[in-house]
Amino acid sequence: MRFFSDNAAAVCQPVLDALAAANHVDTAYDDDALSQRLNCAMGEVFETEVEALWVSTGTAANALALAALCPPHGSIICHREAHIQNDECGAPEFYTHGAKLLLGDGEGAKLTPEGIAGIADGIRDDVHQMQPHAVSITQASEYGMVYAINEVAAIGDLCRARGWGLHMDGARFANAIAALDCAAADITWRAGVDMLSFGFVKNGGMSAETLILFGDARVKATEIKYCRKRGGHLLSKGRYLAAQVLAMLEDDLWLANGSAANAAAKLIADAAPDRLVYPAEANEVFIRLSAEEAASLRAKGFDFYDWGVGEARLVTSWDQREDEIAPLAEAIAAL
Amino acid sequence: MRFFSDNAAAVCQPVLDALAAANHVDTAYDDDALSQRLNCAMGEVFETEVEALWVSTGTAANALALAALCPPHGSIICHREAHIQNDECGAPEFYTHGAKLLLGDGEGAKLTPEGIAGIADGIRDDVHQMQPHAVSITQASEYGMVYAINEVAAIGDLCRARGWGLHMDGARFANAIAALDCAAADITWRAGVDMLSFGFVKNGGMSAETLILFGDARVKATEIKYCRKRGGHLLSKGRYLAAQVLAMLEDDLWLANGSAANAAAKLIADAAPDRLVYPAEANEVFIRLSAEEAASLRAKGFDFYDWGVGEARLVTSWDQREDEIAPLAEAIAAL
Amino acid sequence: MRFFSDNAAAVCQPVLDALAAANHVDTAYDDDALSQRLNCAMGEVFETEVEALWVSTGTAANALALAALCPPHGSIICHREAHIQNDECGAPEFYTHGAKLLLGDGEGAKLTPEGIAGIADGIRDDVHQMQPHAVSITQASEYGMVYAINEVAAIGDLCRARGWGLHMDGARFANAIAALDCAAADITWRAGVDMLSFGFVKNGGMSAETLILFGDARVKATEIKYCRKRGGHLLSKGRYLAAQVLAMLEDDLWLANGSAANAAAKLIADAAPDRLVYPAEANEVFIRLSAEEAASLRAKGFDFYDWGVGEARLVTSWDQREDEIAPLAEAIAAL
Amino acid sequence: MRFFSDNAAAVCQPVLDALAAANHVDTAYDDDALSQRLNCAMGEVFETEVEALWVSTGTAANALALAALCPPHGSIICHREAHIQNDECGAPEFYTHGAKLLLGDGEGAKLTPEGIAGIADGIRDDVHQMQPHAVSITQASEYGMVYAINEVAAIGDLCRARGWGLHMDGARFANAIAALDCAAADITWRAGVDMLSFGFVKNGGMSAETLILFGDARVKATEIKYCRKRGGHLLSKGRYLAAQVLAMLEDDLWLANGSAANAAAKLIADAAPDRLVYPAEANEVFIRLSAEEAASLRAKGFDFYDWGVGEARLVTSWDQREDEIAPLAEAIAAL
Repeated sequence: MRFFSDNAAAVCQPVLDALAAANHVDTAYDDDALSQRLNCAMGEVFETEVEALWVSTGTAANALALAALCPPHGSIICHREAHIQNDECGAPEFYTHGAKLLLGDGEGAKLTPEGIAGIADGIRDDVHQMQPHAVSITQASEYGMVYAINEVAAIGDLCRARGWGLHMDGARFANAIAALDCAAADITWRAGVDMLSFGFVKNGGMSAETLILFGDARVKATEIKYCRKRGGHLLSKGRYLAAQVLAMLEDDLWLANGSAANAAAKLIADAAPDRLVYPAEANEVFIRLSAEEAASLRAKGFDFYDWGVGEARLVTSWDQREDEIAPLAEAIAAL
Repeated sequence: MRFFSDNAAAVCQPVLDALAAANHVDTAYDDDALSQRLNCAMGEVFETEVEALWVSTGTAANALALAALCPPHGSIICHREAHIQNDECGAPEFYTHGAKLLLGDGEGAKLTPEGIAGIADGIRDDVHQMQPHAVSITQASEYGMVYAINEVAAIGDLCRARGWGLHMDGARFANAIAALDCAAADITWRAGVDMLSFGFVKNGGMSAETLILFGDARVKATEIKYCRKRGGHLLSKGRYLAAQVLAMLEDDLWLANGSAANAAAKLIADAAPDRLVYPAEANEVFIRLSAEEAASLRAKGFDFYDWGVGEARLVTSWDQREDEIAPLAEAIAAL
Repeated sequence: MRFFSDNAAAVCQPVLDALAAANHVDTAYDDDALSQRLNCAMGEVFETEVEALWVSTGTAANALALAALCPPHGSIICHREAHIQNDECGAPEFYTHGAKLLLGDGEGAKLTPEGIAGIADGIRDDVHQMQPHAVSITQASEYGMVYAINEVAAIGDLCRARGWGLHMDGARFANAIAALDCAAADITWRAGVDMLSFGFVKNGGMSAETLILFGDARVKATEIKYCRKRGGHLLSKGRYLAAQVLAMLEDDLWLANGSAANAAAKLIADAAPDRLVYPAEANEVFIRLSAEEAASLRAKGFDFYDWGVGEARLVTSWDQREDEIAPLAEAIAAL
Repeated sequence: MRFFSDNAAAVCQPVLDALAAANHVDTAYDDDALSQRLNCAMGEVFETEVEALWVSTGTAANALALAALCPPHGSIICHREAHIQNDECGAPEFYTHGAKLLLGDGEGAKLTPEGIAGIADGIRDDVHQMQPHAVSITQASEYGMVYAINEVAAIGDLCRARGWGLHMDGARFANAIAALDCAAADITWRAGVDMLSFGFVKNGGMSAETLILFGDARVKATEIKYCRKRGGHLLSKGRYLAAQVLAMLEDDLWLANGSAANAAAKLIADAAPDRLVYPAEANEVFIRLSAEEAASLRAKGFDFYDWGVGEARLVTSWDQREDEIAPLAEAIAAL
């Protein structure tokens, strides 16, 4: 049983079915019927008009968003543990043509308005320093924590006051919404988010993520489409990406999948309340685990990553059933 | 009936089946079992050891290859009608960080050694000019013509003599091989090609192309993998790309599909020998057609692009059956 | 006697004197008293409010201007023989982060509105092609010809109608103004020019050129200042650049120097009316010259570049006195 | 009396004299007689063969060096307070095309081998993270401290062991050598430095710095020359830059100037031993100073920057005579 990453999980059946259903001749790139439905379908999810662009990776969605929010000579404030800083091999720097990430702190990979302001206030307002133009937060965070609505709104207010853009890396957005049990609108544009990388791949999709532009940021859609093309991300048979996303939106499958993964994580977390490094609010559980304990779990067939020294990361997926999770929970409880 | 583009065609069934067959948990990115088989499977196709990297678009494959062959201050010689020049919105410039495309001529979008040498010889050897580092040719060409083995070899010899890399944009490589009826090796590494963008999407795939590195160019695989990641092209569920490619290689499906499209084009071309702008060697037919003639064909339900004034482009696909083609051929013949 | 390039000429004495006069402590970068006078001094030259930024090379001025006028996914129309295309080793591509130069034709390296429109009209308005955002013309041109006021104005009108920026590479702007005998304003902002690279180095300066922003383009000054800094072009002792420029503006020294070089060129051209490849309107003379004739001139001590086969380029400088020129003129006349 | 920055100081007379002496016709760019002497003259300073390239700013020298040492997908380890991180507006990111600076700690803006290794060891060796390719240290440091020979050598050993390049930002290299009283070779190539940005502007020059390549790094000279050109840093009258540098090397003027500035700093530091934030080893003195104390010094005509809260930075220059410094020293001592 594998708890390495939700990236390793399978694709859910409705997505495969949608690929088959889309399998007929249609216009190329994003001029097909399915791609043309994306804005509207996402508008319903977010209760407002949006621009929605499919891409095949979250890294591409993040990098395209940041490039639209920050000039090459500017800087972007993110958490020291952000995926865009540590796990995208410089895609933000590539797509922004050299903007700098300024690194903040905060529990569980969550930024705070105070932390953000502190970084920005340390930047002299002259041409020798790269002026902040945007903030990027990850929802759910890289450590499995979730920003509450008021937390995002406070950051959104700060961004607005300073004239910055606010990007949300939602690789695990479904898990966050499932955890918060709130409207998707409340944690995004209503809280000041300009652009959202809405992830589907970790949550049962195959190869489709969606970049969502809200409010005034929608005006950037044209420019981003040029950047998507020059980044090599305008698939010629794009309808198979749109099909995946639309299938995941149908009957809120994305939410059901996110909830399932969260429930699995909760089973594990509840078995080890004293071991938790962070509250397990989404589908990642970080626990303290000695090398011997880790070895004993692995001997029982549970695979996962060590996380630094004395800690482990357990990621649950949309398709992990209780009969897979329960043995792990029991094994941890029995340590 | 649509003859706009092979990009509009459907995905062939074995590819869809392969996606379903791949649908179980496996390691993320390109560490899964299918991705790990790619080098070996491509090695059999090309009768030599290769490095094979999946990406989701031909534009990405081309741009990654060119970036590995040419520094930012260098230049790349290609045809004036090359896809990399006209239809990739600057992806080569983006991935190479600003290298320049130098544009050559030649019938049917095919370069000649003389033309290439003429361009290069016009470049002063000093720091004020961008020195050529690579040549890129398209096989089959943007005008549906095919380079013969000796034609590629002559360009390959020139590149070797000058110390340049040779890239082949094989978006329609299957159509070229079907037309040439030669070994894939003969028209690539044996003729001096260093890197090939091996296309599958136009030929019945969904979202997987493959960049192939031959011979000494294989040493660039590591660097290209970093660039693929920072370009946002390392899909987390990469196994679904590998699955597509492997399905297309199985029993030479790629060749069968390419042959089918070529045969369809031949039916059309044979119906209009006096109208051909270029010999229809692959799956594209360019014919002279007056506005009235074009309108009359469209009135009969045939869709295609005008190509400049008084010409039309008809592209056939792997899945177009004779009963679709014959009426078009007859309609053209009857004009 | 050397007729290779005006780049080889000496620096005129007032510029050296100005360096000595500036040699006391002052604020660093461009906050010193001299740099702060630049906008005003240039405003007088151009009879309007301008933003004026010193840089140390024309290549930097050109590249910064183009980067401010064209996004990375856009294109810039220039002449096939433009310095930005052939002699800046990709600086425009570097500073624009990959924009493409689209190459036009026209006698004597001068673009025409028809030629420009023809290039632009060949670009499909979709994300696959790099849309034009700017035009760059060189005044005086790379072949020593000068755009008349109405010629620039016609291009300016076209740019305005299409929403493009218009950049003028004025490496030899002084020679052009001297030839036209018009107001600097008439051939720049009044004719629709947004940005001018105003050259001084070829004309008696040492290491200072100036980028001038007119009208609405002035709003880009802040962004360009960031780009100048990140390009490494914000000299810490910038006052020594401002001093050079101000010295050249004093009593219209720049115009006097330009006129002197033009007069020298005219002496040569008048001696060889039948050999002229282009009208010698500024300070460059292109003449037909056989290899034997070239050798005979060189044997007499005249140095110059061959220009292709059977042609030669003779460039005169601000400091070449009639007793230097007359012998060359006579030698050519006597061939 | 101004203690803001050595950038504000005047140019020393021998440099001005050298400009006048160079003021005759010569070949353009770096093919003139003076530029051609640079390698040899620097070779004598460093007791080994070097490649020496003039540029007009330290930012350009640093950025060109880093771009030659690190690919776009790599990272460079430097101190959190490094000039390349904080005061070059992203020039390193621009010239490297997006490499990332990884920030280390250490007293007085000096890195340690342990600190460097700690950063590098935290980077996973996979394509998701930007692998370190170089280290950059500043000598003298941004806080006026000097790396001892064995300190540089230890970092050099680490770089060699890991296969990284080592760059030294020597904006105040003269001050460092004056402080160490050692051979320039001992603190550079003999200690493992591959590239040095050798600063002259802060030390009495006008607009010329020099990038020095040692040992195996010399092979990068050609590539760097292309990058210098495309960065707009190949001045057409380059001989006036070479002249400045050669004048500063003559009779070790650079060392005399550096020593003079250091001596001035020592006078100040000796007057305030209890206020020193860092040992004043070069020409910068950082002292604790209350707002009232700062105001009282300013009221007496001494100008300087506050440095954070309760601290001040006092920078001395090559041309500040004892009668300028003594009153400041006395005023501080009397606080």
